[in-house]
Amino acid sequence: MIYPKIISRIKDSSSIAILSHVAPDGDNIGSSLGLYNALERTGKNVRYILDDEVPRLYRFLKNADKVERPGTWEAFDSVVVLDCGEPKLLGKCSQYLENNFIINIDHHISNTAYGNLNMVDANAAAVGEMVYQIIKIMGIPMDQDISECLYTSIVTDTGQFQYANTTSVTHQIAGDLINNGVSAPRMFEQIYQNNSKEKVLLMKLALETLEFYHEDKVACIAMDREKLDAAGAKPEDSDGLVNLARDIESVEAAVFLKELEPGKVKVGFRSKRFVDVCRVAKQFGGGGHIRAAGCTVAGSVDEVKAMVIEAVIKEFQQGVDTI
Amino acid sequence: MIYPKIISRIKDSSSIAILSHVAPDGDNIGSSLGLYNALERTGKNVRYILDDEVPRLYRFLKNADKVERPGTWEAFDSVVVLDCGEPKLLGKCSQYLENNFIINIDHHISNTAYGNLNMVDANAAAVGEMVYQIIKIMGIPMDQDISECLYTSIVTDTGQFQYANTTSVTHQIAGDLINNGVSAPRMFEQIYQNNSKEKVLLMKLALETLEFYHEDKVACIAMDREKLDAAGAKPEDSDGLVNLARDIESVEAAVFLKELEPGKVKVGFRSKRFVDVCRVAKQFGGGGHIRAAGCTVAGSVDEVKAMVIEAVIKEFQQGVDTI
Repeated sequence: MIYPKIISRIKDSSSIAILSHVAPDGDNIGSSLGLYNALERTGKNVRYILDDEVPRLYRFLKNADKVERPGTWEAFDSVVVLDCGEPKLLGKCSQYLENNFIINIDHHISNTAYGNLNMVDANAAAVGEMVYQIIKIMGIPMDQDISECLYTSIVTDTGQFQYANTTSVTHQIAGDLINNGVSAPRMFEQIYQNNSKEKVLLMKLALETLEFYHEDKVACIAMDREKLDAAGAKPEDSDGLVNLARDIESVEAAVFLKELEPGKVKVGFRSKRFVDVCRVAKQFGGGGHIRAAGCTVAGSVDEVKAMVIEAVIKEFQQGVDTI
Repeated sequence: MIYPKIISRIKDSSSIAILSHVAPDGDNIGSSLGLYNALERTGKNVRYILDDEVPRLYRFLKNADKVERPGTWEAFDSVVVLDCGEPKLLGKCSQYLENNFIINIDHHISNTAYGNLNMVDANAAAVGEMVYQIIKIMGIPMDQDISECLYTSIVTDTGQFQYANTTSVTHQIAGDLINNGVSAPRMFEQIYQNNSKEKVLLMKLALETLEFYHEDKVACIAMDREKLDAAGAKPEDSDGLVNLARDIESVEAAVFLKELEPGKVKVGFRSKRFVDVCRVAKQFGGGGHIRAAGCTVAGSVDEVKAMVIEAVIKEFQQGVDTI
C-alpha cells in the first residue's frame, strides 16, 4: 500500500512543490489546487508551479491566483506531480524533477512511474478522487474551498458524471463534497454556463457547415480559416463543437475539421458505440481513444474531409458494440 | 413514518395500478417503470396507465412498451400515484382515484395530499429516489432494468446532477445504481445524445436570432412560425434552446420566444443568480420558479419581445444573489 508512504513523506516535508501538465484541464487545476489549499491549511510551505496559464473557467477556484510560472531550478523537500503521465508533459517544470524527491500521483494507465513514490490508479475517474483520499487520510478538514477544487476535477474529467470512468466511488465522493459546501448549480454555472459570445457565434457558423454521410450515420462539421476568423474566436472556443454533430440521433461517428493554416487541417473524431475512431486517427498519424481521437492532416479542408470521411465509413465494417 | 405503512399496503395488494402526470418527463417515466418492473418481479398484477405517450427518449427502458392508455374505470387493490402534485394532472387517469385506495408518492412541496397514504418528500431530487428506497426496503433485488429506470429519473430531474436539488443522497443512489449495472455512457447516449436532425437545424436558426440587451446581461432568442416551420421541428424540439442564450458568460437572464400562432407567443425565461424570472412571468399571467419560468402572451413576436425584455431589465433592480 503506497498511500501511507506518500502521506508520511508529505507530512515530513516542509517545502512542497505541486506540478502538473501543460495545456491544463479541470482535473489538473482542480486536483492541484485542492491539494495546495489543503497543505496550506497545515502550515506547509507549498507552491503550485505550472508552465501555462490557468484557464479562465477555473480562475474562480480558491488561490488560483497563487499559481506560479516556473523560474530557475529550486530544491524542495518533496515535489508532488499530479495527473501527469510522463515528465515531458510538465514543460519547463520538468526541471524540478532533477535532484528533488518525486511523488507521482496519476490515473493514466500509460504513466511511466518516474517518481520516487508512484501512486497510479487507473480506476480513479479523476486525480481529484485520489487527492480526496489523501486529504481524508491526513485528517485535514475538507472545507468548501478544497471541496470546490476536487468537485471541479471530478465533474470535468467525468464529463458531468457521464463517461465510463464514473463509478460508485466517484458519486460517493461528489456527494460528500456537496455535504462539505459545494453548490452544484454554482459549479455548473462557472464551468459550463460560461461560453463566450464568440463561441456561440462559432457554434452558429459550425452548424451551417453540418453535413451527413452514410445514411446519416456520419456527420461532419468543417471550419475553414474564414469562418474561424469571422467569429473572432479563441482556439479553445472550438472545443466541444464536435459534440453538436455527435449528439444527433442517427449519428454514430462525428468528424470535426478545423483549418489551422492553409494546407493544414486538425481533425477531431467522436463515436458512440461501434466505430473505433482511434484506428481511423492512427491512419493519419494521430491517436486517442476508441470513442474520441484526433489527427492533423496536410491538405485543403475539402481534400482532408473527403479522405477522413472515407476512412470513417470503412471503419463501420469493423465495428463492435461496446456499451 | 409513512414508509412501513406504504410498503405493507403494497405487499398486501394483488392488483396495483401505477399512475403519473400527463406530459411525462424522465422522472415520471423512470420512477413509474422502476416501480413497475420491481413489482412485476414479485409476481403482482401490476399495470402502468398513462394518459399520454411515452416520449421517444425513454422508450429504451424495460417494459416501456407495456405502458397502457386509460380505458374505463376499474377496481385495484391499490393505486400508486407518482410525481403528481394534484389529481387533475393525471388527465383521464384521475378516474382511477375514485373508489380505489390511493398511495400518493411525490416530491412537490405543493402536493395536495389527495391519497389515503401520502408520502411527500420535498427534499428528494426525484421521485426515483423515493422509489429506490421503497424497493430497497421491500428487499426486491435492484437489477439492471430497475436501476436504469431509477437512474433515468434521477439524472433528468437533477439536470445531470446540476440543480440545487442534488444532494449527497442523490449521488449515493446514483453510485449504487451504477454498481447494479447502469452504464452511465449508455444512459447519456440514450437521453442526451439523441437529438433529431430537425432539432439541430432549429438550433442553427435559433442562434441566428440571438440578440443581446442591458450590457449583454440579457440575451433573447425569438422563433417565429416561419423559422419553426422551416426546420420541420416538433414542438418538443425547441425544449432547451433557451439554454443556448443562458449559457453565455455575460448573460444573467435569457428569454426564449416561440410563436404558437399569429398573435400568440410562448415565452420561456431562465436566469443564473440574481433575477427572479418567476416574478417577471407572473406579470404576464404565467409562473414557475425563480430561475426558470414561462408565460403565454398575446401580440406579435416583436411586440411581446419588447414587453418582456423591458420587464426583465426592470427586474435587475430587485435582484439578490442566491448562490
